[in-house]
Amino acid sequence: MLGSRHIKHCRACGTLVEYRVPSEDNRERAVCGGCGTVHYENPLNVVGTLPVWEDQVLLCKRNIEPRYGLWTLPAGFMEIGETTEAGALRETDEEAGARVELQGLFTLLNVVRVSQVHFFYRARLLDTTFNPGYETIEARLFREDEVPWEQLAFRTVRETLHRYFDDRRRGQFGVHFADIV
Amino acid sequence: MLGSRHIKHCRACGTLVEYRVPSEDNRERAVCGGCGTVHYENPLNVVGTLPVWEDQVLLCKRNIEPRYGLWTLPAGFMEIGETTEAGALRETDEEAGARVELQGLFTLLNVVRVSQVHFFYRARLLDTTFNPGYETIEARLFREDEVPWEQLAFRTVRETLHRYFDDRRRGQFGVHFADIV
Repeated sequence: MLGSRHIKHCRACGTLVEYRVPSEDNRERAVCGGCGTVHYENPLNVVGTLPVWEDQVLLCKRNIEPRYGLWTLPAGFMEIGETTEAGALRETDEEAGARVELQGLFTLLNVVRVSQVHFFYRARLLDTTFNPGYETIEARLFREDEVPWEQLAFRTVRETLHRYFDDRRRGQFGVHFADIV
Repeated sequence: MLGSRHIKHCRACGTLVEYRVPSEDNRERAVCGGCGTVHYENPLNVVGTLPVWEDQVLLCKRNIEPRYGLWTLPAGFMEIGETTEAGALRETDEEAGARVELQGLFTLLNVVRVSQVHFFYRARLLDTTFNPGYETIEARLFREDEVPWEQLAFRTVRETLHRYFDDRRRGQFGVHFADIV
């Protein structure tokens, strides 16, 4: 949807916009012919956690589109007025109803096709009582050999889980950067 | 500006929006009473580099507001369809006209007051010919004892430079995470 000329009207005055390159710019923007407002569109951040309990990781079965019924790490769009860490904690609470302690950024993934940047933090679960919200059918723990690899909702989730189990085998957790094309 | 109810009209149909919490949401959004479009607002990413030549760093004197005439690292808003790295390279070209090779993420800074996340990459300058664009009055190299600390444009620039010189003294560069309040 982003970048596909989905802005039709000016947010300030309601006039129909035109798509053109403003002066002193080099990209096409939605520009209001009435009041001159330039409407910028930019990538979005998705923030979440990889919650761990002993040798298990927490996954959530999605109760919403896209990818209804598939498994994900708790994550969602970062909101105005919060840090990436605060957003990751909020999503973990909203989607899994899980209490965690963050243990640092683990993966930072550019998803260019949809213009998103995904941040996943390693997180230590403080208990195993989960109380997922309406976005989640079920939240449960998986050992590595139980992870439903063929039923994961997003490539960034798969990438984050693979890197986690690899690092765990090595006994050292890094920060990982990758582009998902 | 973000989060301050600056959306007045629906981008899809031009109808006046109302601010309310949509069903199955927990935040106030601009919702169109005509076509039902929900307008989300989210934090923006600023991507840039810390370009280095021998014992010097490259700074740009701003030719635009905000902070006209103050010094900054080359950085700007990440655009649709690019990675954080590609955006950092683009801004380095646009603002400094400098050719660099990226050397990894160096600082990741949450600037909550303005709902931004700033990414600065360490970068090795490939030569010392700079050709800054219209946003920059002058691009030049500074040794640590020459940096105009009192005339830096942004706190994230100050933070990034401090951490760079600290790490350089230690002989090891990490990835640094901080919240700017």
